[in-house]
Amino acid sequence: MSHEQYKNCIEECLKCMQECNHCFDACLKEKDIDMMRDCILLDRECATLCSLAANTMSINSPFVREICELCAKVCEACGNECNKHNHHEHCKKCAEACFACAKACRMMVA
Amino acid sequence: MSHEQYKNCIEECLKCMQECNHCFDACLKEKDIDMMRDCILLDRECATLCSLAANTMSINSPFVREICELCAKVCEACGNECNKHNHHEHCKKCAEACFACAKACRMMVA
Amino acid sequence: MSHEQYKNCIEECLKCMQECNHCFDACLKEKDIDMMRDCILLDRECATLCSLAANTMSINSPFVREICELCAKVCEACGNECNKHNHHEHCKKCAEACFACAKACRMMVA
Amino acid sequence: MSHEQYKNCIEECLKCMQECNHCFDACLKEKDIDMMRDCILLDRECATLCSLAANTMSINSPFVREICELCAKVCEACGNECNKHNHHEHCKKCAEACFACAKACRMMVA
Repeated sequence: MSHEQYKNCIEECLKCMQECNHCFDACLKEKDIDMMRDCILLDRECATLCSLAANTMSINSPFVREICELCAKVCEACGNECNKHNHHEHCKKCAEACFACAKACRMMVA
Repeated sequence: MSHEQYKNCIEECLKCMQECNHCFDACLKEKDIDMMRDCILLDRECATLCSLAANTMSINSPFVREICELCAKVCEACGNECNKHNHHEHCKKCAEACFACAKACRMMVA
Repeated sequence: MSHEQYKNCIEECLKCMQECNHCFDACLKEKDIDMMRDCILLDRECATLCSLAANTMSINSPFVREICELCAKVCEACGNECNKHNHHEHCKKCAEACFACAKACRMMVA
Repeated sequence: MSHEQYKNCIEECLKCMQECNHCFDACLKEKDIDMMRDCILLDRECATLCSLAANTMSINSPFVREICELCAKVCEACGNECNKHNHHEHCKKCAEACFACAKACRMMVA
């Protein structure tokens, strides 16, 4: 598969990476930070995996499938956590980006 | 500075990261790989720094200026090397992305 | 599992990361670079995964198992490739580090 | 400079990376997480830079000096923040690792 074919999946990964990072930053500033512990951890993990997946696809690595599958799992975990706090705009947007990215990764693997 | 204000610079970093990765992959497949040694190394370095800069801006880190300044330097080095091989389409596109990214990083720092 | 329990696996990952990076650098300087294309790519991939695995274990992430499993796979692929060129000292040492790391990752997952 | 000459500095970077990651994990579990916001952010940043510095040295990159200089800065910022909370064992150990790493990076650059 060429990097052209990866295009949509790379874009979703890079959007998700950014939303996870914004959410990480915003969670660290929330009054109710006590409730955001898991969200902060998963935001970091998910940004890392999305970044890795985008890099992996764009160097056309032989491990694209494995990494996208893992990325989808981490995105789903992060999206589910963020959804518990979707009264925070940043968590709501992050959850949406996570589920969109998970979907794109799963389609790529299929 | 908020992540909205970083938007253009993040986009240039992520474009450049992708072009550097494509160029890395393509250089590794070139017949004249003997000529592409420095290009392969700088493509990896530049993708790493662009990825770091995009992550740093999107978590709103206190080290954005320093990292963007360094990213600009690495982009310029990679762009200059790629320009020597701009008969390869991937090197030509990579050089353009590198210089555009360097410019965006330098504007952000200014 | 605490980070103390991860200790041996983290150490193997960090050793392997370094050997893969040395091998990447050395392959790029080899006269027979034409033969080292896959080695260069896998060295980069393997260093990336080892680095990720070490970070993942040391933040005590919920995805340690998945990432160590993937790390083992990439280490084995890189070790097998390096073994084809084990007349190069750097490839020989890299292959050894890759197989040791794969073993440590597989034990951790088991 | 060869990777042998980088050896000590790489080791300090990798120790510091691990301590920052442990501190990140432990801060996220502290009762007084409200006080640990800056520590959590800087732990992540510092682990990222230490990891980058170790990779950069071990691939023998032309940007080792610039990245080690930046790594030293981030280590000092993280060490200073951790020192404010050195009643937490993890912050105390992290601060020590940060200052040791900053020192090794500054010596390497000098």
